[in-house]
Amino acid sequence: MTMNDNLPNVTVIKVGGAVVEDPALLAGLLRGFCSVPGHKVLVHGGGRSATAVAGRMGVETRMVDGRRITDDSMLSIVTMVYGGLVNKRIVAQMQALGINALGMTGADLNIIAAHRRPATDTVDYGWVGDVDRADGHTLARLLREGITPVIAPLTHDGRGNLLNTNADTVATAVATALAPIRRVTLTFAFEKAGVLLRPDDDTSALTRLTLGQYQDLKARGAVSGGMLPKLDNAFAAIRQGVSRVFITGHGDLQATRGTTIE
Amino acid sequence: MTMNDNLPNVTVIKVGGAVVEDPALLAGLLRGFCSVPGHKVLVHGGGRSATAVAGRMGVETRMVDGRRITDDSMLSIVTMVYGGLVNKRIVAQMQALGINALGMTGADLNIIAAHRRPATDTVDYGWVGDVDRADGHTLARLLREGITPVIAPLTHDGRGNLLNTNADTVATAVATALAPIRRVTLTFAFEKAGVLLRPDDDTSALTRLTLGQYQDLKARGAVSGGMLPKLDNAFAAIRQGVSRVFITGHGDLQATRGTTIE
Repeated sequence: MTMNDNLPNVTVIKVGGAVVEDPALLAGLLRGFCSVPGHKVLVHGGGRSATAVAGRMGVETRMVDGRRITDDSMLSIVTMVYGGLVNKRIVAQMQALGINALGMTGADLNIIAAHRRPATDTVDYGWVGDVDRADGHTLARLLREGITPVIAPLTHDGRGNLLNTNADTVATAVATALAPIRRVTLTFAFEKAGVLLRPDDDTSALTRLTLGQYQDLKARGAVSGGMLPKLDNAFAAIRQGVSRVFITGHGDLQATRGTTIE
Repeated sequence: MTMNDNLPNVTVIKVGGAVVEDPALLAGLLRGFCSVPGHKVLVHGGGRSATAVAGRMGVETRMVDGRRITDDSMLSIVTMVYGGLVNKRIVAQMQALGINALGMTGADLNIIAAHRRPATDTVDYGWVGDVDRADGHTLARLLREGITPVIAPLTHDGRGNLLNTNADTVATAVATALAPIRRVTLTFAFEKAGVLLRPDDDTSALTRLTLGQYQDLKARGAVSGGMLPKLDNAFAAIRQGVSRVFITGHGDLQATRGTTIE
């Protein structure tokens, strides 16, 4: 993108469930977050906490293809855990670090509109939302006012219903919505050091990954599982004007050792 | 107050737990909220839901003088229920009604700073916060931008800890903080029609109540229980510059039949 080369930078950082659910890891993450220069947005997960709370409440967690089936009970639980427990703990800790954080779901200020995913013959995900539109202008206004949005992976349908939405997808939608008006870096931080050639070997992280290389790796089965939707989101973000996308460890938010998606 | 007679009005409405926990009552309340003219802030409770969720999670609810003992487990639960479940359901339903709602705790944008209530010889309330300061200027800026804050009864200590804070107290702090810059009406909406002379007889609601009358009623034992802190908050708000205070039924947010505190 050349049209936004002179625009102020913003970094959208997505952090996975594991890091937000361990107080020591979270404290380290937030210190790293402070050190990333410029305007920032944090998008967080929280699936493990949701599963734990569901278990304690006697609600069964059912997953299909790695995605949570969200019936009425599970929607209440993810609303509590993502929108309340995880989000507000992060906000309170950021405030203690001098970051003027504002916790949000997609319903707050109507920043992310979505629709309920239609049931198919084989699966009904329930109250799961596919994103229609994120409001980059409202997010950019908050950033200009010195506010750091902290976004939970919940959207809404505009008819009063909250929807459970994958956090990688939320981060991609937010980054893409900001791309026409800001120079955007999108960073997916998770428990690995980057896109690994050998599973569980952090020293095998790729420095760079192009779409052609990704398609080749996918064809050979060298990337699989939860990395596939993350990389699909990453390449979609690049196509839609996001300037840089990193996949990196949550201790390395500036991706000095992670993978740059090109 | 004469100094703010020409300032734009804002109405701070506090709704009790019962109304936000029954979907039909909540829908009716939100229709009433829409019909209140001018800028508005909603402060909500949620104690019954917190007690219900605690029960399902095997966490015992302990109350002293009507206030919840908030240990680590209970803080997690009220953070989930007040900051997540109740708050985000209201926000999503307001958005469906065309109100640009923003759900907040006191930690979000640092709008309500508090300190943990010190333990005494007889009781340690745990993670319960007494309010030090609410940020009326930030709230007024949000209102000017067409945003309707929806505030959960959680504050923070500025050191990374959330604190459970009585919702009547939060509403009073918000109204008082706005009073120097806006002409403020504070409305406590609950399950009774107003301040009742005869318990459970809604036709006995007082039209007006002065501080002298309140002290007289209190001395005669004609008001008691949960009404006492509500009225103490109401008179404190008047003393601190809030223009009008109503105590009314949640179906009557404009207090056509409720009690005006003078």
